[in-house]
Amino acid sequence: MSDTAARLSALRAELEKADLNGFFVPMADEYQSEYVPDSAQRIEFLSGFTGSAGFIIALKDKAAFFTDGRYTLQASQQIPADLFTIFDMATKTPSAWLAKNVKPGTKLGFDPWLHTDDGIARLKKAAAKAKAELVPVERNLIDAIWHKRPAPPAAPIYAHDVTYAGKSSADKRKEIAADLKKDGPAAAVITDPASVAWLLNVRGGDVPNTPLPLSFAIIKDDGKVKWFVDPRKLTSGLTKHLGKEVEACDPGLLPDALDRLAEEPKPIRVDPAEAAYWIVERLRTAGAKLDLGEDPCVLPKACKNSVEIEGMKAAHRRDGAALVTFFAWLERNAVSGELTEMAAEEKLAECRAGNKHYRGPSFHTISGAGPNGAVVHYRATPATNRKLTKGEFYLLDSGGQYMDGTTDVTRTIAIGKPSPEMRDRFTRVLKGHIALASVRFPDGTTGSELDALARQYLWAAGLDYNHGTGHGVGSYLGVHEGPQGISRRSKVPLKPGMVVSNEPGYYKPGAYGIRIENLQVVNEIVELSGGERKMYGFETITMAPIDRAAIDIGMLSNDERAWLNAYHARVRENVRPMLEGEAAHWLDQATMPV
Amino acid sequence: MSDTAARLSALRAELEKADLNGFFVPMADEYQSEYVPDSAQRIEFLSGFTGSAGFIIALKDKAAFFTDGRYTLQASQQIPADLFTIFDMATKTPSAWLAKNVKPGTKLGFDPWLHTDDGIARLKKAAAKAKAELVPVERNLIDAIWHKRPAPPAAPIYAHDVTYAGKSSADKRKEIAADLKKDGPAAAVITDPASVAWLLNVRGGDVPNTPLPLSFAIIKDDGKVKWFVDPRKLTSGLTKHLGKEVEACDPGLLPDALDRLAEEPKPIRVDPAEAAYWIVERLRTAGAKLDLGEDPCVLPKACKNSVEIEGMKAAHRRDGAALVTFFAWLERNAVSGELTEMAAEEKLAECRAGNKHYRGPSFHTISGAGPNGAVVHYRATPATNRKLTKGEFYLLDSGGQYMDGTTDVTRTIAIGKPSPEMRDRFTRVLKGHIALASVRFPDGTTGSELDALARQYLWAAGLDYNHGTGHGVGSYLGVHEGPQGISRRSKVPLKPGMVVSNEPGYYKPGAYGIRIENLQVVNEIVELSGGERKMYGFETITMAPIDRAAIDIGMLSNDERAWLNAYHARVRENVRPMLEGEAAHWLDQATMPV
Repeated sequence: MSDTAARLSALRAELEKADLNGFFVPMADEYQSEYVPDSAQRIEFLSGFTGSAGFIIALKDKAAFFTDGRYTLQASQQIPADLFTIFDMATKTPSAWLAKNVKPGTKLGFDPWLHTDDGIARLKKAAAKAKAELVPVERNLIDAIWHKRPAPPAAPIYAHDVTYAGKSSADKRKEIAADLKKDGPAAAVITDPASVAWLLNVRGGDVPNTPLPLSFAIIKDDGKVKWFVDPRKLTSGLTKHLGKEVEACDPGLLPDALDRLAEEPKPIRVDPAEAAYWIVERLRTAGAKLDLGEDPCVLPKACKNSVEIEGMKAAHRRDGAALVTFFAWLERNAVSGELTEMAAEEKLAECRAGNKHYRGPSFHTISGAGPNGAVVHYRATPATNRKLTKGEFYLLDSGGQYMDGTTDVTRTIAIGKPSPEMRDRFTRVLKGHIALASVRFPDGTTGSELDALARQYLWAAGLDYNHGTGHGVGSYLGVHEGPQGISRRSKVPLKPGMVVSNEPGYYKPGAYGIRIENLQVVNEIVELSGGERKMYGFETITMAPIDRAAIDIGMLSNDERAWLNAYHARVRENVRPMLEGEAAHWLDQATMPV
Repeated sequence: MSDTAARLSALRAELEKADLNGFFVPMADEYQSEYVPDSAQRIEFLSGFTGSAGFIIALKDKAAFFTDGRYTLQASQQIPADLFTIFDMATKTPSAWLAKNVKPGTKLGFDPWLHTDDGIARLKKAAAKAKAELVPVERNLIDAIWHKRPAPPAAPIYAHDVTYAGKSSADKRKEIAADLKKDGPAAAVITDPASVAWLLNVRGGDVPNTPLPLSFAIIKDDGKVKWFVDPRKLTSGLTKHLGKEVEACDPGLLPDALDRLAEEPKPIRVDPAEAAYWIVERLRTAGAKLDLGEDPCVLPKACKNSVEIEGMKAAHRRDGAALVTFFAWLERNAVSGELTEMAAEEKLAECRAGNKHYRGPSFHTISGAGPNGAVVHYRATPATNRKLTKGEFYLLDSGGQYMDGTTDVTRTIAIGKPSPEMRDRFTRVLKGHIALASVRFPDGTTGSELDALARQYLWAAGLDYNHGTGHGVGSYLGVHEGPQGISRRSKVPLKPGMVVSNEPGYYKPGAYGIRIENLQVVNEIVELSGGERKMYGFETITMAPIDRAAIDIGMLSNDERAWLNAYHARVRENVRPMLEGEAAHWLDQATMPV
């Protein structure tokens, strides 16, 4: 019997013991953050699937695995088809599956720490349609059978200096407290570890690619904070950094602290889209008045202050120098036809490694040659490791965590001479990128209202891409950060200081992929002569040449050409002082006007 | 004492009698449709205000009048400031006012027929914050003091022939019934008179500018309809037109029919955003299971069938011929400097009057010269009647009701030579118009996602306009029709057959106004070679030249110039056969390529 079969069978024995007919296994830990630590990789343990999006419903006689379009192929390779039926969530939702596959009276268990309050509301609705019942379990049924479960991460937590953060934790706490006082709640339960890290100006290393310490906090409207964090993570000097207003508490004290919030005459803010059901339910059961609403740190965290923006820009200059060094090397080495995706990825890491303040990648590099570039979330492995080949595109999406900022950049490089179709598609993507980079817009405009600007030239040819155009980016924090974005789903007004990516693409399966990604910061436009309205615009902060050999220059308007030349001049001016020799020479060539 | 003072004082005596502390007077009748008949113009009766947007809260010791930016000036001229405080709803909502101005325990009366169910929910929430109470009244307090209240309209109702409607009422009823069966409800209460008119293929004349009969209907999932309509409106032949499945009932029977819907085991669909609170509350009280959701006629009514689209196009060709005849006359007569807005408006009406199938204007013409063009919803009156003057813009927004279609078109004409700034602004508006007219977009795209295309060239200069870019248009029905539109608030996906206006503008108060408006129909794009996705696009159906003298040609891209020339060639081809003499000659000149 395979590991997977044995584990599924053991889980079913646990179902029997717990008097349940099924169990949900989401891709989540109790912090609901983007990266799930090994100790919470229950889907991988149960099914063998190693991707980053998944949801399992295990019943006694069948089991369903749900993922998104990125991972359906990988899932079919990793998960035994006789044990799990694999679904693309876009065509079959867990709710729809439940409606057809569970009988009235079915008892479905769930771990109340691994679902948000909103998520359980949705599942309850779906279960109710099938006349099934949702039952929270005290101990996760997977953990009961997972004998070698890794320990939860406990990376040291250190202060994030105000020279990078731009505002002291004390000032942030004062401002959040004032917001609470104005809005009405007596306290907010902060369940997003990134919000806690921002609020307390601390960083850690509990998850890959992000300097994130996993922890919870409660902030009261007087600015005092209880910080629920594993004491083993605390490093010396942190107490002084935090001051007397922040009390570090053992996470075991959280339940009691939540209960005591019920004594407050004013309501308690908690974010039902982010907080574990367990936390919200504990407050409800204790009789707290709930103010279900957005985590009060989310918006101030998204709107970077001037020190953070200057830091982001400095990090992007250094990151640009590393990229240019890499591209110069690439140009010399790709012609051989022997350079592989993984070797290129390794060289890029080497180019970044020496950079000041560099602490590691901000996500796993996507290094995709030819048809591999068409796989949106591709990860090169020994089995797929393709050579960069003449006449193909090479797509490189990577980023760095610097103590003064986080970067995320994609360039698509023509290896040899691209076909006219490839240049046509590249140019349409570029025109969309430029349209979004140059737009001005009034206060109140959301990303969903700007998304079409980046797609219009592809749409005109009957083409599109199946991902959002942009996501928010943290400041030495998550490379994906809300609430803003540029996509159909981005309904939050863009505000000065927000950083978003601008990354339209085009993907021809089996042939090539194109993506051009810069980060840009929202600025107020002040120099508009004759302007009547307050207008915002974007300032591009990524500093790396866009491959001119991939462009069909004749398709660019004069304004687009001017944008490209001005951007390249700015890249040269910002990055050249850090370079010499081959890289400097390559940059001069790569940034010549078109 | 003025009329207004006497009436407000009489209303307060009624408050006393009814044991109430206040009363709401909305701009609405029991049908919640766009045009309010004279019999329901209670705001005008009480306050003297004649605009189309308003809301009054009359308390015993003070009264507040709310309107939007279009009408604040007019309100201050028509409403005595010592009796009512006037507010712009954009800066002060009735809810916010209530929170500050009513004491705990206040009883606020409302007429349950004049507010939607959603509207009352919002008011209740606002009242609850102020610890006030909402009380429905049996008889409207205004009606009690309105001694010469006009009778409700009772215009004859006639069949709308299938040669115009494109689908028989029987087929429409069959399709709606099938939708209900699929979705679950046993019946739908149709409270929007435009939906009833569409469903039964009938037209009438109860309100200005729209061939709308005011009535309600209930359709069951077997396709049978009870039609609640004043029997005096029924004309001969209607019974035969409607057949045995449609039963005309006296409106007095509606309450009983609603009560009987409570006996259905399946739920009853009613649209809380559209239905009077009275109707929804009657269903609730009777114990009906409610399926609160969209009126099932709204979407099929919006997606015109091929006969309706051909009719719309034919109506627009004839409407274009009338406009060209008018513009030719205008060019000859405006030079004198003596032509007034009202004289021009009258001449335009004359040009349309002779058209085949023409039944009247689709809304009150906006004929605004110079600074009057900057008033978005301007209506020329003897007091404001300006002469068309050299060096100024003349803005003309008008439309016709034809039995085969409804038109709505705005042109901005340069009288003499416009200034460089005027041409710059006109050209930015035109560029936005062209961008929206030419965009292609995938299924699922909403108007809110396309709105920025029309604004981008104004935004680039720090300019904007304070209205949506487009609204849906009915087929020989309301010139404003949902659910689609092009604006920040338009969250409904655009579907083939929908007709929307494309009308960006620019307004410089005290100087000039610009608007360029065409109607366009959503089509599936079928001829896209190399295209990979199903794409939709717009086909412009309005047929009238855009004033080339107002354009700064140098600001247009080659593609924009090509669009303009192709559009003008199409206008000439479609309209020229209907013209001769001066008008034909003018058209030839006006549509020459740029």
